[in-house]
Amino acid sequence: MLIYIAQLNPKVGALSHNTEKIIHALNRARLEKAEIVIFPESAISGYPPEDLLLYNNFIDQMEKELEKIIEASQNLFVVVGTIRRNTEIRGKPLFNSAAVIYDKKLLGYKDKTLLPTYDVFVEKRYFESSHIQKVFEYKGKKIAIAICEDVWANSDDELKKYKQDPVEDIKKLNPDLLINISASPYYYQKKDLRIKVLSKVAKTLRCPHIMCNQVGANDQLVFDGHSMCFDKEGVLIAEAKGFVEDHFLIDIEKPNPQSIFKTDPLSELYSALVLGVKDYFRKLNLSKACIGLSGGIDSALVLCIAADALGPHNVFALNMPSRYSSLSSFEDSNKIAANLRVEMLDIPIDHMYQQYLDLLSPLFAGKSFDTTEENLQARIRGMILMAISNKLDYIVLSTGNKSEMAMGYVTLYGDMCGGLGVLTDVSKTLVYALAKWINRKKEIIPQSIIKKAPSAELKADQKDQDVLPEYSIVDKVLEGYVEDHLSIEEIVKKYNLDITLVTELVERIHRAEYKRRQGPPGIRVSKKAFTKGRYFPIVQGWISE
Amino acid sequence: MLIYIAQLNPKVGALSHNTEKIIHALNRARLEKAEIVIFPESAISGYPPEDLLLYNNFIDQMEKELEKIIEASQNLFVVVGTIRRNTEIRGKPLFNSAAVIYDKKLLGYKDKTLLPTYDVFVEKRYFESSHIQKVFEYKGKKIAIAICEDVWANSDDELKKYKQDPVEDIKKLNPDLLINISASPYYYQKKDLRIKVLSKVAKTLRCPHIMCNQVGANDQLVFDGHSMCFDKEGVLIAEAKGFVEDHFLIDIEKPNPQSIFKTDPLSELYSALVLGVKDYFRKLNLSKACIGLSGGIDSALVLCIAADALGPHNVFALNMPSRYSSLSSFEDSNKIAANLRVEMLDIPIDHMYQQYLDLLSPLFAGKSFDTTEENLQARIRGMILMAISNKLDYIVLSTGNKSEMAMGYVTLYGDMCGGLGVLTDVSKTLVYALAKWINRKKEIIPQSIIKKAPSAELKADQKDQDVLPEYSIVDKVLEGYVEDHLSIEEIVKKYNLDITLVTELVERIHRAEYKRRQGPPGIRVSKKAFTKGRYFPIVQGWISE
Repeated sequence: MLIYIAQLNPKVGALSHNTEKIIHALNRARLEKAEIVIFPESAISGYPPEDLLLYNNFIDQMEKELEKIIEASQNLFVVVGTIRRNTEIRGKPLFNSAAVIYDKKLLGYKDKTLLPTYDVFVEKRYFESSHIQKVFEYKGKKIAIAICEDVWANSDDELKKYKQDPVEDIKKLNPDLLINISASPYYYQKKDLRIKVLSKVAKTLRCPHIMCNQVGANDQLVFDGHSMCFDKEGVLIAEAKGFVEDHFLIDIEKPNPQSIFKTDPLSELYSALVLGVKDYFRKLNLSKACIGLSGGIDSALVLCIAADALGPHNVFALNMPSRYSSLSSFEDSNKIAANLRVEMLDIPIDHMYQQYLDLLSPLFAGKSFDTTEENLQARIRGMILMAISNKLDYIVLSTGNKSEMAMGYVTLYGDMCGGLGVLTDVSKTLVYALAKWINRKKEIIPQSIIKKAPSAELKADQKDQDVLPEYSIVDKVLEGYVEDHLSIEEIVKKYNLDITLVTELVERIHRAEYKRRQGPPGIRVSKKAFTKGRYFPIVQGWISE
Repeated sequence: MLIYIAQLNPKVGALSHNTEKIIHALNRARLEKAEIVIFPESAISGYPPEDLLLYNNFIDQMEKELEKIIEASQNLFVVVGTIRRNTEIRGKPLFNSAAVIYDKKLLGYKDKTLLPTYDVFVEKRYFESSHIQKVFEYKGKKIAIAICEDVWANSDDELKKYKQDPVEDIKKLNPDLLINISASPYYYQKKDLRIKVLSKVAKTLRCPHIMCNQVGANDQLVFDGHSMCFDKEGVLIAEAKGFVEDHFLIDIEKPNPQSIFKTDPLSELYSALVLGVKDYFRKLNLSKACIGLSGGIDSALVLCIAADALGPHNVFALNMPSRYSSLSSFEDSNKIAANLRVEMLDIPIDHMYQQYLDLLSPLFAGKSFDTTEENLQARIRGMILMAISNKLDYIVLSTGNKSEMAMGYVTLYGDMCGGLGVLTDVSKTLVYALAKWINRKKEIIPQSIIKKAPSAELKADQKDQDVLPEYSIVDKVLEGYVEDHLSIEEIVKKYNLDITLVTELVERIHRAEYKRRQGPPGIRVSKKAFTKGRYFPIVQGWISE
């Protein structure tokens, strides 16, 4: 029984486009003699469709697209993710569903049981949960179906505890195969956890477990693909590639040796960022990006990612020195642009900066230099980048990293300008690790950039560490407070840090909430991003007053 | 049996501060001979506490604050909103709960059944639902307790259909009184619906229904208070004031004549906006605002709201003319500032604008004037406002209205700069209505401002209607598409509009998503705001590609 796992990259809301991809895969699967074809969760709408689901005609159109898929299914057993109406009078109006089709007939639906509503997920906003587990018979085999979260009840994550575990109920049905359609987003080092969870389900059910995952970036979420097949002992026996559309064929009764990819967390992180940029542009029909180069490591890394995602010829770098910019920054910017074959232009901003100082001096008489003047420089740069964006159709990529976003060490409407914040979910620690990974074969990012002390160069002899502790400490607090929801006391204990320091850093995180609220959308690559799936009040009295 | 309804204004997360307010109300109630005291939903944490709930020590501290309240409850029967742990092994870790206390003893909890997860609500992110309804006996009376949404199952709103109606189960318990603790946010013209829904519950249960609502603004949500008492016939017999902390006393066995306030939708809308500004500043320990005046109606209205919320002496207006600004705009700005006794300063920006044109001219050679140059002017103004904000501690209030935000007829990092977008949820139609309402007794907003054709004055002889249809049409599409989730075809039919025009406007709404994502937080005053409770992908293929 040959099974074709179609790991597709849908575009959210592009129903007919996504359906064409599905039908194309069906035809290819038939050519390859497959009997069963599996698609990801919400393959017709793309995941997550968000509030498009509140439009009745969106649901109507999905029904029509499903009809086309049914029509194109001759001789195939197909499992495809869709969204359908809940026809009961009570309960949320929709089900997140798997349509099960055989040979141009709809056999039925398996509706999702566990509706993730935590972190980046808000499925209970739209969907009713179904408590019915069932198997579909095909050639004497009992095929059970799960949708993504349905197999994650036992993942030991406090934040998504459920009252039931669908796998327990599926087990009672003695399936011969579990087909799991997923839209499981990537985060750094998640793959090991996913293998562990999915493998355990195969062992529990004592049957093979095939998971077909969505791939591609939709807005801020990156889906890594890596569709997988586990045998009944829970051994991973086949895997699709990560971060690209792919498919594999497997006969679960007599599996052939298949590709299994070694997990390399930094390589995956880099691929996720590249895919995040690539799909954002491609799916918006955009091609060109511009980036302000500071001579620092963040903008150098963003330049690498952009050049990989869009091609160096589609990337435009700007060097915009003020009186506080060092010659070495200028040289370093030139070097990285040359290494990547990216065009770079110099637009000195000091004259403009002086104009603002003169304009504002009557108002600011007697006041000394402070962040106001620093922000002016960052905002002039933002304005120039945005003018280039408006006139020449470049999308500005913002370069602030997650540690800076946490600390508020970024200028709102300044270096925070941009259509996409490439590194807003990458800590400074990981920025360095990625830079070294990029240089693993040859020097692309100049060593001088990696080795210099971080500086915004917005005043004389400035260093980030004038106002912040070492980033290694910032990143521990970031991990403890933002990602793991530890209290100040727990962070002090876990990382052996000073309580005054930790308190100050946690207060900084909350004080910067108003900036982040207006930050560019980011590419979510950690298990807790600032830009998606995190809801904190700007006005609050828990921390810092 | 005298009941004291304590309509408090808590600050989210300020647990000990909120507890002090609660205890103060208990003492006052005792002085006034009350036997029962009722507080709003989540009175200890303030509503909505959002992801502060993910911190264990936040929950621990709420437990400690509740102990203080219990300790201060001598001789009183108290119902107070809190959040407590779900001690079962399975299910979400918390309950949204009412603690029921009598004379320094905790009698028990009533946990919330219906957890709103739609629009601005995400309660299923945090809470497990309780299916148990119960009554507490006090002096021979059976007191049932509901928490806000628990009584809204029958409100006929498609988006929040539930599988059960707790009122049906409460009815079986034959209560003598229903106490309903709420944190029910305001939106324009909601009050009539609320009265209808709450009144029906009293009639269904054939007992009095007392609803104690939170008041005050927390971040983007405004809670209007208007706590209410209905008799068993469903007649509204007592009401607390709107938009201020208040309390009332009622003896449900022999109710005295009480205040009932006439509903005036525009007056309430204005109060909501003023409270939104006031609480944002007060709860952040801020006092001063600056506003760029354009001579148009939006900035004039924001100036009125700010002067009311913060006092005219705390408001600073800037007039920043470019070569395209008219003399009449300058005069109108002067007039409104003078009428409100707000200080105004002129900072002409034309010289700075010319500097940017010169700086960019080598790059833009051969390209004609377009929105780039318009945006430059708006962004120079934004930079000046932000410099004043940074140096002199004024918070910038942004003035773009909801119709402009819908159409993307605003400049990102330009007029969208600001700590708070006062009108981001007020359509142009309502902006005019509010201006006329403000002028109902005497002219505060000059007639010339109200009568002139809307113009951004960013190029010669510019009018909004050069690129947009009349705002009356824009606002119909806004209402149909954004608030009511109608399809293009349904909007065409409902408002008798041209399909090409409606399609173009709907496409504009989606195209502007990337701008709104980086917009300032707004004050939510409609049933569907852009800035909170609306999730749309920037990258989507449903509308416009």
